[in-house]
Amino acid sequence: MTPEEFRKAGHALIDWIADYRQKIPELPVRAQVEPGDIRGALPSHPPGGTDDFSALLADLERVIVPGITQVQHPMHFGWFPSNASLASVLGDIASSGIGTLGISWESCPALTELEEVMCDWMRELTGLGSQWRGTIHDTASTACVTAMILARERASHFSKNGAGLQGVAAPLVVYSTSQAHSSIAKAVQLAGFGNDNLHMVAEDPWTRAMLPDALAAAIEQDLAAGKIPAGIVCSVGATGTTAMDPVEEIAAIANRHGVWLHVDAAMAGSAMLLPECRHLWQGVEQADSLAWNPHKWMGTILDTALFYVRDVDHLEAVMSTNPSYLRSGADGQVTQYRDWGIPLGRRFRALKLWFHLRLDGVEAIRSRLRRDLDNARWFRERVEAAEDWEVVAPVPLQTVCIRHVPRDERGQPLCGEALDDHNLAWVKRINTSGAAFMSPSQLDGRWMVRVSIGVESTTREHVARLWELIQQSAAAG
Amino acid sequence: MTPEEFRKAGHALIDWIADYRQKIPELPVRAQVEPGDIRGALPSHPPGGTDDFSALLADLERVIVPGITQVQHPMHFGWFPSNASLASVLGDIASSGIGTLGISWESCPALTELEEVMCDWMRELTGLGSQWRGTIHDTASTACVTAMILARERASHFSKNGAGLQGVAAPLVVYSTSQAHSSIAKAVQLAGFGNDNLHMVAEDPWTRAMLPDALAAAIEQDLAAGKIPAGIVCSVGATGTTAMDPVEEIAAIANRHGVWLHVDAAMAGSAMLLPECRHLWQGVEQADSLAWNPHKWMGTILDTALFYVRDVDHLEAVMSTNPSYLRSGADGQVTQYRDWGIPLGRRFRALKLWFHLRLDGVEAIRSRLRRDLDNARWFRERVEAAEDWEVVAPVPLQTVCIRHVPRDERGQPLCGEALDDHNLAWVKRINTSGAAFMSPSQLDGRWMVRVSIGVESTTREHVARLWELIQQSAAAG
Repeated sequence: MTPEEFRKAGHALIDWIADYRQKIPELPVRAQVEPGDIRGALPSHPPGGTDDFSALLADLERVIVPGITQVQHPMHFGWFPSNASLASVLGDIASSGIGTLGISWESCPALTELEEVMCDWMRELTGLGSQWRGTIHDTASTACVTAMILARERASHFSKNGAGLQGVAAPLVVYSTSQAHSSIAKAVQLAGFGNDNLHMVAEDPWTRAMLPDALAAAIEQDLAAGKIPAGIVCSVGATGTTAMDPVEEIAAIANRHGVWLHVDAAMAGSAMLLPECRHLWQGVEQADSLAWNPHKWMGTILDTALFYVRDVDHLEAVMSTNPSYLRSGADGQVTQYRDWGIPLGRRFRALKLWFHLRLDGVEAIRSRLRRDLDNARWFRERVEAAEDWEVVAPVPLQTVCIRHVPRDERGQPLCGEALDDHNLAWVKRINTSGAAFMSPSQLDGRWMVRVSIGVESTTREHVARLWELIQQSAAAG
Repeated sequence: MTPEEFRKAGHALIDWIADYRQKIPELPVRAQVEPGDIRGALPSHPPGGTDDFSALLADLERVIVPGITQVQHPMHFGWFPSNASLASVLGDIASSGIGTLGISWESCPALTELEEVMCDWMRELTGLGSQWRGTIHDTASTACVTAMILARERASHFSKNGAGLQGVAAPLVVYSTSQAHSSIAKAVQLAGFGNDNLHMVAEDPWTRAMLPDALAAAIEQDLAAGKIPAGIVCSVGATGTTAMDPVEEIAAIANRHGVWLHVDAAMAGSAMLLPECRHLWQGVEQADSLAWNPHKWMGTILDTALFYVRDVDHLEAVMSTNPSYLRSGADGQVTQYRDWGIPLGRRFRALKLWFHLRLDGVEAIRSRLRRDLDNARWFRERVEAAEDWEVVAPVPLQTVCIRHVPRDERGQPLCGEALDDHNLAWVKRINTSGAAFMSPSQLDGRWMVRVSIGVESTTREHVARLWELIQQSAAAG
């Protein structure tokens, strides 16, 4: 395809995207397709010839759009917000159009240095100290695997350079809580610790926050048993109920024992753009690594996961390679991001942040986050005030966890499986209708419904409409 | 940013990209900046206000473009080709514009099912059997880490579910060669095996291919020493000289001992679009996992790394998680790509392949690959015929490794460090001039120069011009 052919097709595509974004509020939130529908609409075998671009656009509309669950829809309240702000989309388009190769500083100095500057800007905007240096990963899951490997190598004195983890006599242990994201247990397993060495620490029964005393006791117990505490993963805004582990107290324990502390603020990191929220990760400066996703609430399109460390020397000692075909005269004077993570090649991700911050502006982003916090407060108050409704967890951010507890024919509150069935039923009716979308989730083995507010286009009006829909659906059950 | 504002800015950006792509041949190949230049041209602190889109475009031109090493330039012969075909760029733009969230089938059925179909199309186009199932990773490095974890878990009988690799008594060993990409040793280290347990197998001194007899002997030796052979990484087109390990013989040994065989065809996978090249990975059907990068020679923009396995049950048993907030009614009937790799969230990468294959067409891609093979043959013949020039390795694909060996004042061929200095000097003169770019690399501890042909816009004329430049620069030394 020539640049002139690209120009023509590109203009048509931009118009298609603008039109598509405009009509999202009219689309069903959850994709209304069954397993195999999309696959069935596509040829089983690759095409022999070529197609006009108009055929591609028509297929985007006909085949792809019906298979999209609309996370940009103002009535999307599922999982966590996954905003793809159009300002950041422009940065992503620039990245694609430029078509760089990020395998070393030399392969694209601008890619490396803009990534450094954007990580510094984001550090400053979230109130972090200058001791932190950052990079952009694809996801917080990958960041956590990296952190667990960093913890493993610190505790094992670089076993990777010798006999490996299999040569370490005393078991290395990682600490977290049951509220931590599923990627935490996965990271512990992938890094080789084994699930038996993931020590789940007790939580506060209401806030679901890790209990520092229980952590200290767990470490003492493991030390007494001859084990080596290697890592702690602390959640700031855990997925289920946005639980907030007390970072400061945990960091004190971690530092006392020389244990690597990774802070998973995948969701709550966006809130740290607001000075009034920063108490939620008080003590973070004492952690060893930190990850959060601008591609969630803040809205810099996926994949934009920030990963910060304080000890870059340790990071590079664990992750670096230095093959002859990648050496250049700039070595030693520049950052080589290939030595900061798992992949060698990288996209020019920093452009997304650059465009987002400059075009939308941080103050507009902050206003939107405050709007969402206010909407969550409003919604929480409605649920708390309503008969037979419960808010089942604290609401430190913008996610409200609710349950409907109606009375049975004898006037007794529903409980057990009947309560589960009732709540799963009302949310399913809404989700399948396409009118709105929420994520049911389990808490203490019972189902509740997470209402996660924060899509860029979600206003108070949408939240009010959701509350009506919820009450109607629950009453219809 | 509203869709209408996006429309206006998007059109300007498309024009900028088309103009930029058109003028690439006039730009220096290697970025003409020094460490810190780009950083110095950017504000140290984040902006308080907002900018017009025209300011962003102006900064792209002023700050970013000078900091790009032009891997899309027809005179780029460095590393490996990293083609970002404009057809695939359109697919990438569609992905950005749509702004989906790939964390489960339910979060975007179209993302999952198009990825399945594209992996099937690519399987068919490269002549692989239907036993393989694929996914798209960011890079072959990540695919290799995944493969090493799969090998570890098979050999350790799912140590991840118990005491971890640290609980495995006998050391697990991985086999590869010194030619394998640097990401292989890194993957072995990250997966916890330890560098001592990476057993480097002897190679043929000319082809640099792994010697199957040496592999068999290494395995026997380790077994006799009480170790457990766990994985083999076999290179099809290794980075240094595109060495080709003999897959069929290695697979026979791997299968005899139940050792996981991962085939790293990151570069050479593109060649498998050509039936006449498939003998180069003869035996691949007996491997356990396989990775190759359409984002190299084939030209589907980075990040597009295919990863195939035969035993999906094992893959999912190792990589899966099933938190309550991600469950849906479709579970069990659909592919959950989160259980196929490290990250949870994923971009809609399959669109890049879909657009590329449908707009450019596989026959045009094949013609281009054949053109490049022919250009490499032509170039190799010129070098072989020239006095004082050597082709230092076989040329199974499109990368020609060369060295200039002039005579000193006494009529003796240069050798040792003087030879290194001379070759590094002539390539440096060309690279720093910006006229062309090649990657110096070491072979048996001595420097040579890799000329990797295959940029989409590189014709015979460019290769001929390169050969003139090379001779001039070497003569000027």
